[in-house]
Amino acid sequence: MIPRLALIGLGLIGSSIAHAAKRGNLVGEIVGYARSPETRATALELGFIDRACDTAADAARDADLVILCTPVGTIEAITREIAPALKQGAIVSDVGSVKASVIAQALPHIPKGVHLVPAHPIAGTEKSGPTSGFATLFDNRWCILTPIPGGDPDAVKKVEDFWRALGSNVDTMTPEHHDRVLAVTSHIPHLIAYTICGTASELETVTGSEVIKYSAAGFRDFTRIAASDPIMWRDVFLHNKDATLEVLGRLTEDIFALQRAIRKGDGEMLHDQFTRTRAIRRGIVEAGQDTDADNFGRYKGKKD
Amino acid sequence: MIPRLALIGLGLIGSSIAHAAKRGNLVGEIVGYARSPETRATALELGFIDRACDTAADAARDADLVILCTPVGTIEAITREIAPALKQGAIVSDVGSVKASVIAQALPHIPKGVHLVPAHPIAGTEKSGPTSGFATLFDNRWCILTPIPGGDPDAVKKVEDFWRALGSNVDTMTPEHHDRVLAVTSHIPHLIAYTICGTASELETVTGSEVIKYSAAGFRDFTRIAASDPIMWRDVFLHNKDATLEVLGRLTEDIFALQRAIRKGDGEMLHDQFTRTRAIRRGIVEAGQDTDADNFGRYKGKKD
Repeated sequence: MIPRLALIGLGLIGSSIAHAAKRGNLVGEIVGYARSPETRATALELGFIDRACDTAADAARDADLVILCTPVGTIEAITREIAPALKQGAIVSDVGSVKASVIAQALPHIPKGVHLVPAHPIAGTEKSGPTSGFATLFDNRWCILTPIPGGDPDAVKKVEDFWRALGSNVDTMTPEHHDRVLAVTSHIPHLIAYTICGTASELETVTGSEVIKYSAAGFRDFTRIAASDPIMWRDVFLHNKDATLEVLGRLTEDIFALQRAIRKGDGEMLHDQFTRTRAIRRGIVEAGQDTDADNFGRYKGKKD
Repeated sequence: MIPRLALIGLGLIGSSIAHAAKRGNLVGEIVGYARSPETRATALELGFIDRACDTAADAARDADLVILCTPVGTIEAITREIAPALKQGAIVSDVGSVKASVIAQALPHIPKGVHLVPAHPIAGTEKSGPTSGFATLFDNRWCILTPIPGGDPDAVKKVEDFWRALGSNVDTMTPEHHDRVLAVTSHIPHLIAYTICGTASELETVTGSEVIKYSAAGFRDFTRIAASDPIMWRDVFLHNKDATLEVLGRLTEDIFALQRAIRKGDGEMLHDQFTRTRAIRRGIVEAGQDTDADNFGRYKGKKD
């Protein structure tokens, strides 16, 4: 039980943490801050926070656990702002999709006696804002902790317990490894999805309405993650430059290999490439990280 | 009402046509052929065909409408084989994802008095085989016809009526335009999905089990269409070479532009790119071609 939880940022992740914490009765009080007064009002109205503050520092004051749920580009400024308000023994955590940069931004501002425990829940939807959160978002997903070397093990344990109580499984790794893993499983897929949507909308020979009408042939799958929050994703790429560029380099190399196979009419190479991917899909379904229902379950209840 | 429908190929699309035709009571008899005896036995057992034949020619004999539902690389051989068995006035259609090549393969073998009406239903799932079909697959999806210049308008009308009765909307365009449109909305998305899965599984620094565990961060979305039938997709790229290479060239150009923006830390450019894609997603949802539910409805019923 955490007596006072402060959420800085009340979007999809912040609001989902609040819903899940209330579902599990994990906290005494939830204090929230969001830059926009409308977001704060909505959060109060929906009841997932108990109290709203006009500044991040006020929200963080006397909190036992402060979770930063804002784009990773804001971490330095927010940590600097809330630092003087943090009480001794408080834990500061976050949910950022990039970890080395978050640590570099936050750690210099964390006061002595306060513990920084970086975290990243691997869960989300394509929606944003305070109305988009829900209590089951983290159920059976993974949350990755990247503890600070020499940091307080009790603080890490508290954050780990909190995420398990929110419904997550918890793993621990270095921030550098996290950033490389997420470049593969998240950042590059988002970048490619955004790019394909952009390319499709700019072709001269195929109209936008054609792209939309015939999108069920595959394209529509990419548009979901490409509808994600643009500021959050801008910050991810600005703050995980090296790992994303490395994975992107590998991907373009592989694209060129397939491009050459198409040009040369190398059916065997294409078939080989297209065959080995089914095992990954099967692994993801077996690990409970995706549904096996046709089309992600879009046809749910319609299949006869 | 079509007295006798012959389906050559009894996989996802062939079996779905049969289910939808029976749902709408659109045909007198459905005769089926598949290369594998197991597939034919399954089709009879499931009851979506009334009679199975040991050869494509036997299935096509005396049929009023013959629909080829096999990979586009097989069209020439099958058309040549069934040609002598086709009755006068019969219509031969197909469901191939590529149209110019299908016409080039089939047309020389179509006998005088028989009508070729190429078609492509824009619908599917990631599953394959005779057990994967269902009656509602084509509901509210589009079917594109690419009529042969100088062909019989009555035959085109019959195929159009048939697809509407199966639940589809119907559009008509030239085969060349079809192949360009589908390169954008289907072929390149599949190629990229296959490639990302391949790249992810071959990295030295991130393990396969990490890719699977943390796939909910975006990657898993790509694995669905990358689980599609490898032979069907090999044939698509071998038979729509020019259009796919053209769109792929545009896409890699755009990837390089974003790569440079990341390298230079150009947040404004990234933000601009990531912002304009939401309109496409909205358009697809509004056109009824995708669900607006979070995560494609994976959380259906779980959201509180």
